[in-house]
Amino acid sequence: MDKPLILVTNDDGITAPGIRALVEVARELGEVCVVAPDSPQSGMGHAITIKDPIRLRKARTFEGIEAYECSGTPVDCVKLANNIVFKNRKPDLCVSGINHGSNASLNILYSGTMSAAMEASMEGINSIGFSLLNYAYDADFQPAQPFIRQIMAYVLQNDMQSTKLLNVNIPALPGPELKGIRVCRQAEARWKEEFVESTDPRGQKYYWMTGVFINEDRGEDTDIWALENGYLSVVPSGHDLTSYAAIPEFRRMEQ
Amino acid sequence: MDKPLILVTNDDGITAPGIRALVEVARELGEVCVVAPDSPQSGMGHAITIKDPIRLRKARTFEGIEAYECSGTPVDCVKLANNIVFKNRKPDLCVSGINHGSNASLNILYSGTMSAAMEASMEGINSIGFSLLNYAYDADFQPAQPFIRQIMAYVLQNDMQSTKLLNVNIPALPGPELKGIRVCRQAEARWKEEFVESTDPRGQKYYWMTGVFINEDRGEDTDIWALENGYLSVVPSGHDLTSYAAIPEFRRMEQ
Repeated sequence: MDKPLILVTNDDGITAPGIRALVEVARELGEVCVVAPDSPQSGMGHAITIKDPIRLRKARTFEGIEAYECSGTPVDCVKLANNIVFKNRKPDLCVSGINHGSNASLNILYSGTMSAAMEASMEGINSIGFSLLNYAYDADFQPAQPFIRQIMAYVLQNDMQSTKLLNVNIPALPGPELKGIRVCRQAEARWKEEFVESTDPRGQKYYWMTGVFINEDRGEDTDIWALENGYLSVVPSGHDLTSYAAIPEFRRMEQ
Repeated sequence: MDKPLILVTNDDGITAPGIRALVEVARELGEVCVVAPDSPQSGMGHAITIKDPIRLRKARTFEGIEAYECSGTPVDCVKLANNIVFKNRKPDLCVSGINHGSNASLNILYSGTMSAAMEASMEGINSIGFSLLNYAYDADFQPAQPFIRQIMAYVLQNDMQSTKLLNVNIPALPGPELKGIRVCRQAEARWKEEFVESTDPRGQKYYWMTGVFINEDRGEDTDIWALENGYLSVVPSGHDLTSYAAIPEFRRMEQ
């Protein structure tokens, strides 16, 4: 039987340690092809490159693995993988990450890692985004790897029926302290930004964005709760933003 | 009584005719402040500027209207508006657009126009994104204006209870052919991309993204159905991507 074809991508760029940790797991489970950004693309959300040409180059980043680096966004990478690299093949699984930093709660909306996985899911491919709650470049991805392997193997063996996208976040804990997996909903939270104002050498003002994440959701069925309590969070996700409960409220506009 | 404070933004840039048409309506209903990108930002999705400083400059684009142009993404514009421009005031309404081109169906995910409105909604502000189904720079926004006025006035008068975000799309039709407003769900559809391959003067390959939109949803309660039948579509939207129906399927992973 053919090995499953696994597309690996990310948003931190093809040289990030996180994607290397993900490739290590993926190559044990299938035939791996990497198509990832040639530079960091954090915070790109579901951005696509419309007005500029996109470059795609063979990369020798991973020993014995077919890999390409792409000048575009994470979503561009997935579109190019499916249209240019695979042509008539379709991957059995797309995995994105391992992201350096959390994509839990509403961070899914800002995340290039999750947008790449979502793009693949919109094209009908089972897709998983993985994120470790440690922003450091040299974060330790090893404790996460057995769980990532378990989740990828589950999806390869069982397919996905009711959605094609999982958002997986992993606490930055030593292996023995990781308690297991919780299937959750996305917590309701928000970012409270502050902008640091500064002045450039020509006397012009500019701003740096900074912010704190504020969880306002006390539910114990959320991804934030799971992560704060030592569990990996798995949120089955989709791409329908309709607020069905709100439809009746606005019917009066139709008159 | 104070006039309501209305934040106007977009993704086509502060000089686009679409935002001018939106400002014309908004100034009849309240005190307007514009914070919009200084260059086109279509397809930026929910991207934010993390690694670069952001510039914000006073603009004299609109006679008698306080306006700022921002070097960042549409989402950055909303964050800067709330944190730097308004400081301790909170707008009563944020309107984004009028986008040159459709943001119906899953285009909401790629759209800078809708992401700006979504960002404001996540900060608790009633928000509406408006899009006209005509990509042309010199599209005729006039037939849309009475409907936009009606929808903005409705929200200012009635508040929003069950969601803070509306995605409004408008057929590019002469006024008499616009049949009215339909409150809808987001149609299930997809983009089928093609990449045009070309070679630069140095012999390096590059790709331009192009694509066709494919609606696979035959429901008559969708935004695409409404638009194809001469109605404006209003989709009450949110920011929770959890696929609740899919949670039970993945519970088995918890063991």
